[in-house]
Amino acid sequence: MERITAKYYIETPLDLEKSAAVLAGEQSSGTFIAVPGETEELKQRFAARVEKITVLDTADEPAIPGVLVSGGKYQRAMIEVSWSIENFGYNLPVMVSTLQGNLYELTQFTGLKLMDIELPPSFATAFRGPVFGIEGCRKLTGVYDRPLIGTIIKPSIGMSPEQTAELVGTLAAAGIDFIKDDELLGSSANSAFDKRVDAVMEVINRQADRSGKKVMYAFNISDDIDQMQHNYEKIVNTGGTSAMISLNSVGLSGVKKIADMGALAIHGHRNGWGMLNRHPLLGIEFPAYQQLWRLAGVDQIHVNGIQNKFWESDDSVVRSIEACYRPMFGGYSVLPVVSSGQWGGQAPETYRRIQSVDLLYMAGGGIMAHPDGPAGGVIAMQQAWQAAVDGLSIAEAAVKYPEFGHSVTVFGKK
Amino acid sequence: MERITAKYYIETPLDLEKSAAVLAGEQSSGTFIAVPGETEELKQRFAARVEKITVLDTADEPAIPGVLVSGGKYQRAMIEVSWSIENFGYNLPVMVSTLQGNLYELTQFTGLKLMDIELPPSFATAFRGPVFGIEGCRKLTGVYDRPLIGTIIKPSIGMSPEQTAELVGTLAAAGIDFIKDDELLGSSANSAFDKRVDAVMEVINRQADRSGKKVMYAFNISDDIDQMQHNYEKIVNTGGTSAMISLNSVGLSGVKKIADMGALAIHGHRNGWGMLNRHPLLGIEFPAYQQLWRLAGVDQIHVNGIQNKFWESDDSVVRSIEACYRPMFGGYSVLPVVSSGQWGGQAPETYRRIQSVDLLYMAGGGIMAHPDGPAGGVIAMQQAWQAAVDGLSIAEAAVKYPEFGHSVTVFGKK
Repeated sequence: MERITAKYYIETPLDLEKSAAVLAGEQSSGTFIAVPGETEELKQRFAARVEKITVLDTADEPAIPGVLVSGGKYQRAMIEVSWSIENFGYNLPVMVSTLQGNLYELTQFTGLKLMDIELPPSFATAFRGPVFGIEGCRKLTGVYDRPLIGTIIKPSIGMSPEQTAELVGTLAAAGIDFIKDDELLGSSANSAFDKRVDAVMEVINRQADRSGKKVMYAFNISDDIDQMQHNYEKIVNTGGTSAMISLNSVGLSGVKKIADMGALAIHGHRNGWGMLNRHPLLGIEFPAYQQLWRLAGVDQIHVNGIQNKFWESDDSVVRSIEACYRPMFGGYSVLPVVSSGQWGGQAPETYRRIQSVDLLYMAGGGIMAHPDGPAGGVIAMQQAWQAAVDGLSIAEAAVKYPEFGHSVTVFGKK
Repeated sequence: MERITAKYYIETPLDLEKSAAVLAGEQSSGTFIAVPGETEELKQRFAARVEKITVLDTADEPAIPGVLVSGGKYQRAMIEVSWSIENFGYNLPVMVSTLQGNLYELTQFTGLKLMDIELPPSFATAFRGPVFGIEGCRKLTGVYDRPLIGTIIKPSIGMSPEQTAELVGTLAAAGIDFIKDDELLGSSANSAFDKRVDAVMEVINRQADRSGKKVMYAFNISDDIDQMQHNYEKIVNTGGTSAMISLNSVGLSGVKKIADMGALAIHGHRNGWGMLNRHPLLGIEFPAYQQLWRLAGVDQIHVNGIQNKFWESDDSVVRSIEACYRPMFGGYSVLPVVSSGQWGGQAPETYRRIQSVDLLYMAGGGIMAHPDGPAGGVIAMQQAWQAAVDGLSIAEAAVKYPEFGHSVTVFGKK
């Protein structure tokens, strides 16, 4: 029978093997009460198994304060636990409750983080996964052999549909591939969702008729299920190609319901991620997280960026991008969305580390505040990536490409 | 214009006021780019406001490791930030993205926890909230003037529908008020959801016909939206009165969609809570959390229990129960679900601290492993609560009530 395996980074002041066994017990057939007809075979069938324990270092203080058991050392380890697929089948929420449920409450652990999961091949037929993924998003935008260049409408909130459309017109004329709503904007008092879609898509469609290039705009449809379905249809009916959902705020069942509609590329925004990930020994790591959303059908997912303005390290960002490139069941492709403080200057380092141009590369100020205007900003971003692939340094690229050179002058000081 | 206020417990190595201002900016109209037609008035309309800063203690080390800015002290504070309702209206996911989104990523903070939220009166008309709440759950079970006594089917997973039904029959005959599936069991290989509902409801309905008392069984419907709707209808069609949902695993939009169906009491399981709450300076506190789920329509919500087997302190449990009793808009009642290592011995202390019997009080071993059998276990729990309300000590209650006395003999050692 197929099994699902989860890897946890844990810390415990108690016996390591016993603590791992408590986790496995609590998350499966744990507290057995004698029941008539219950056999050892049945227990074996549904019990979680501790597959592997890799002992790591010890700490003098618990990773999470407030631990009841104190004194002595806190042992860290990587443990692997597996469950039979018979426990929950292809039910994503019950799988999550099994892999990420009450185990965080156990006093046996002073730290616990879900690092990765390994799913069996039969998941490939049970879940459709991303309908578009990397290839589909390239086809929708007509962009090949370089990253998709994108930007976010700012200010996040406060602009009218008309102002938004005007800005979209400027960006579309500048040659941008992708634009998105901010996650703070759904349907605000002065920018009702439907009106914004109408205004923006009119501009995008007009530009597409002229140039043959249709900008992908990810409208933030996050809302109740019925309203998201309405919003989704609105985008489809006006010729849009993408919908954005705040994954953590909407939740797994809601996202899957919408992604299953299958007509739009789903832009997965992971706001709230810091709460789930920022502590090194609590929560979930991206290699596990992104698999759940690929199963739910997300086509694009945020990964932060190299030298970002947030707290996340470059190593963590690289691990996240690589996790997106890891095929699931030979496919289930998802496009990593690089953003946060990007302006093109990070392109060489990003390419050096990931050796791929399969990215949606987003810049805000790097495009809008470019000294040559937004068109210069978009060109500079494309140049940055060409230079990166050609192995040029930032200084060499600045000499070769005038627009990128101007970026370096303005944004390279920080 | 109405405003929504959120209270955060924060820690920062930087200037406190500036850091709070960054949070407010990032989560509203933050990075303003000059846009034609944009006025100061418009900015004021949508900008988040820092309403209050209460300076607390300092720490020598950051609450969350890995901070970039080091050296010096880490200042802790309680801050209040408000947003106009015009920013997101009655859109729960966008509200969550605003209150709990990218702010956790800010390098300004070495700790950030959402402590509480205050919602304006108009939310009362925009959201139906819990259809049943405390009074509705009492009516459905016919239990007044004492806590509802409940239990969880164990082993969590592995029993067939027939075995489950047999156990339910025993518990129903014993006079139990409430039974629930474990959160690890949705539809397993040997306990398909529909078959379990058929088997269990046949027993419950038969017992109800005989005794006039219908046990409330919370079937775990957590799954995809469509499947949850199917599961829900199955329960309704067989005469069931409750459905359980794993809140964090299904997500806000999915839970609201199901709760809006309005025919069953929604039992909200918060597994995964430790991940969101266990660190004192990361995540969310229950007074904020439970409000989101009441808006979504959850009738019962888990709060752990006094002297529980998990990591949570009694003070935290009491705060959670009190948060459930806080009326929202004069109503929106939700029944706190007390569980984890309960056997009746905690009743006096629980009552002493909360001064209420409006609880669903759950015990596993305390009922099933009672020396007089499950019927003795159920009676002992009722006795424990009568004694608690009458102000008896455990020792006094053990003398007065034989079944509770036997509980003390067996479970009182721990």
